[in-house]
Amino acid sequence: MAKIAMKFGGTSVADLDRIRHVAALVKRERDRGHEVAVVVSAMAGETNKLVGWANEIAKSPGSNFPAMPDQREQDVVVAAGEQVTAGLLAVALGALGVPARSWLGWQIPIRTSGVHGHARIEGIDPEQMNESLARGEVAVVAGFQGVSPDERISTLGRGGSDTSAVAVAAGLKADRCDIYTDVDGVYTTDPRIVPKARRLEKIAYEEMLEMASLGAKVLQTRSVEIAMLHRVPTRVLSTFDPDAGGTLLCDEEDIVEKKPVTGIAYSRDEAKITLHKIPDHPGIAAAIFGPLADSGVNVDMIVQNVSEDGKKTDLTFTVSRSELARALASIEKAAPQIAYRELTHDANVAKVSIIGIGMRAHPGVAQTMFRTLSEKGINIQVISTSEIKVSVLIAEEYVELAVRALHSAYELDVA
Amino acid sequence: MAKIAMKFGGTSVADLDRIRHVAALVKRERDRGHEVAVVVSAMAGETNKLVGWANEIAKSPGSNFPAMPDQREQDVVVAAGEQVTAGLLAVALGALGVPARSWLGWQIPIRTSGVHGHARIEGIDPEQMNESLARGEVAVVAGFQGVSPDERISTLGRGGSDTSAVAVAAGLKADRCDIYTDVDGVYTTDPRIVPKARRLEKIAYEEMLEMASLGAKVLQTRSVEIAMLHRVPTRVLSTFDPDAGGTLLCDEEDIVEKKPVTGIAYSRDEAKITLHKIPDHPGIAAAIFGPLADSGVNVDMIVQNVSEDGKKTDLTFTVSRSELARALASIEKAAPQIAYRELTHDANVAKVSIIGIGMRAHPGVAQTMFRTLSEKGINIQVISTSEIKVSVLIAEEYVELAVRALHSAYELDVA
Repeated sequence: MAKIAMKFGGTSVADLDRIRHVAALVKRERDRGHEVAVVVSAMAGETNKLVGWANEIAKSPGSNFPAMPDQREQDVVVAAGEQVTAGLLAVALGALGVPARSWLGWQIPIRTSGVHGHARIEGIDPEQMNESLARGEVAVVAGFQGVSPDERISTLGRGGSDTSAVAVAAGLKADRCDIYTDVDGVYTTDPRIVPKARRLEKIAYEEMLEMASLGAKVLQTRSVEIAMLHRVPTRVLSTFDPDAGGTLLCDEEDIVEKKPVTGIAYSRDEAKITLHKIPDHPGIAAAIFGPLADSGVNVDMIVQNVSEDGKKTDLTFTVSRSELARALASIEKAAPQIAYRELTHDANVAKVSIIGIGMRAHPGVAQTMFRTLSEKGINIQVISTSEIKVSVLIAEEYVELAVRALHSAYELDVA
Repeated sequence: MAKIAMKFGGTSVADLDRIRHVAALVKRERDRGHEVAVVVSAMAGETNKLVGWANEIAKSPGSNFPAMPDQREQDVVVAAGEQVTAGLLAVALGALGVPARSWLGWQIPIRTSGVHGHARIEGIDPEQMNESLARGEVAVVAGFQGVSPDERISTLGRGGSDTSAVAVAAGLKADRCDIYTDVDGVYTTDPRIVPKARRLEKIAYEEMLEMASLGAKVLQTRSVEIAMLHRVPTRVLSTFDPDAGGTLLCDEEDIVEKKPVTGIAYSRDEAKITLHKIPDHPGIAAAIFGPLADSGVNVDMIVQNVSEDGKKTDLTFTVSRSELARALASIEKAAPQIAYRELTHDANVAKVSIIGIGMRAHPGVAQTMFRTLSEKGINIQVISTSEIKVSVLIAEEYVELAVRALHSAYELDVA
């Protein structure tokens, strides 16, 4: 007998028939003798509907401008979506003769930070849930939500139910966390771009973390962090074809054959900003990035040219496209301190990344990337590297071409 | 400065525009210098949708028979409706520059019994809400819900938001509780049947309690009980025409002119059961009504004929139409103990009631009712009376005729 956590996303619980299907999958695990905690998202479309309502009603009367609702109240509205699914799945399990009870964030409780809308799970008290599991009940947990320090409902941000699931698995010391989704695992890259993309049987936590943060949408980054931190064996598998195999997130040591590159990720949510002819002296970076941080803008890649004369230089960095306007405003406000000659920006850029723990042992991996892109006539605008990934910024129109070329170059097309 | 509670039902918050309208009404009270707690229902249609889903998914696979969901889980599903409205109204108030925060049942908390689906409010802790009001925030309370002794979400049954509102008003020691609804007050009878029905400016708590429990749908009975118990001055008024006057629930002493009859109520949710030729001896009533109570059937009117020979008699009683099948099953099961010769029933009956505290001082009020119905050729099947009401059971087809005739007979057509 094992203790397992299962997670089903919005498309997996999109209507009553699909919730019944999920109940059958949960029953199957229970019939195998397992204790099961199952984490659910809102029915597909519900979260968008509720967020849309909150944004719409936040507008001042007569105004057509978008307005930000009080994020604490938006959380109250939005968290209702997962609440409904949790209750319905508990009822559906009852109809199959499986005892079940729903758990909302505040009931467990799942304690989070007070950053409403993007709260961070800080701890889970597993005691009550464990008692319930011991009584033979399936624990049906509303994903995406927790309770803030001041006892108000908090939500975890897009994809937060993945994080709920892994955190619940960690809290319960579950033997496994199965993330059921609408794809049957993690692929070497996006199969919509590269039809030859292959499903990975295993991927190291570190690699998955890079894949997720560099654009692969299959798991929320924070969920991978928690899985890695608590060493939760986590599987990604298909709700609609649960026996297709899936992908296991595991320790690096558990992966025998290490190719230099495991996967290729890309992100179109990029924008590039360049400050021309800024003074090349200490403190200038602080003058630029301090105000950006204060405005809540996340800066990703940064490159500073060598100055020709030792006095003036150019600085380029990237932000997410949705934060471009905010970033530009912040810089223009700080113009007197920065003293740039010109400010330019480009939102028609994309980031392509190669990821692999094998990179550590294989020199020349980056060189293959640069050569491959060069052969296709693709100009590299910015480069950033870490121990297990290389990212390049290129013109957005070359994304598919670049991803396909790299997929072949690193022999990911063949098993 | 006063402290007031306001309540808005489902049609008053049916869409975003109506929620904005409600926000404006709340702002108006706050601009008058009042501290305001506002209780909201789910958006019209939401509760039915959510209950429908819970019932649908409670069915066993392949079954077409209706099934009862786990009531605790149904409560989780259904309570999401009020949660959404509460969050949205708080956001809408923010857009008008009015600070507001939402309160869910478990947050206040509103403590209830553990009878999920029909929970009874047992207490409200007003401390946190009072602190919030003192900070200048409007308290937006999700109606219809509370938290059960085992910390699970409970709901109060249909119309429960009225009860939430009066209980919140009582808990906060509010100066007034305003129930905004889609009619502009309490009428002498149903205006759809009697166009000449008049809005009552005032009605005594005791009268309203009888009106509500005898079929008038304007307020939930339990809300009137709490208003009466805590002497909460409660007004019923129109969301769409808030200055139309409304009806005030008040003490008997506050009503100067007391007509013999204040209002006429009717209910079609009635069924009559007759046990023929049962033994006329002590203990027979217990043999009949004990099993009924055990099956959760509420018996309303009861009449026992004088037995002709001192040995056998007939017994007739009424139950609500939805409980008829359950009542008959319960009696048939107890047939050996009851030893009736025949069991008949009739669901084509209705109850018409006259209500008025003035009845106490005016003899002959019941006689006027009997004579009026007789003149119209309406046969009275069962009678039940209390100090301030007389109810009669008649064939359902005569309901409108009876109500109109009585409305004229008691001079309710004229002010």
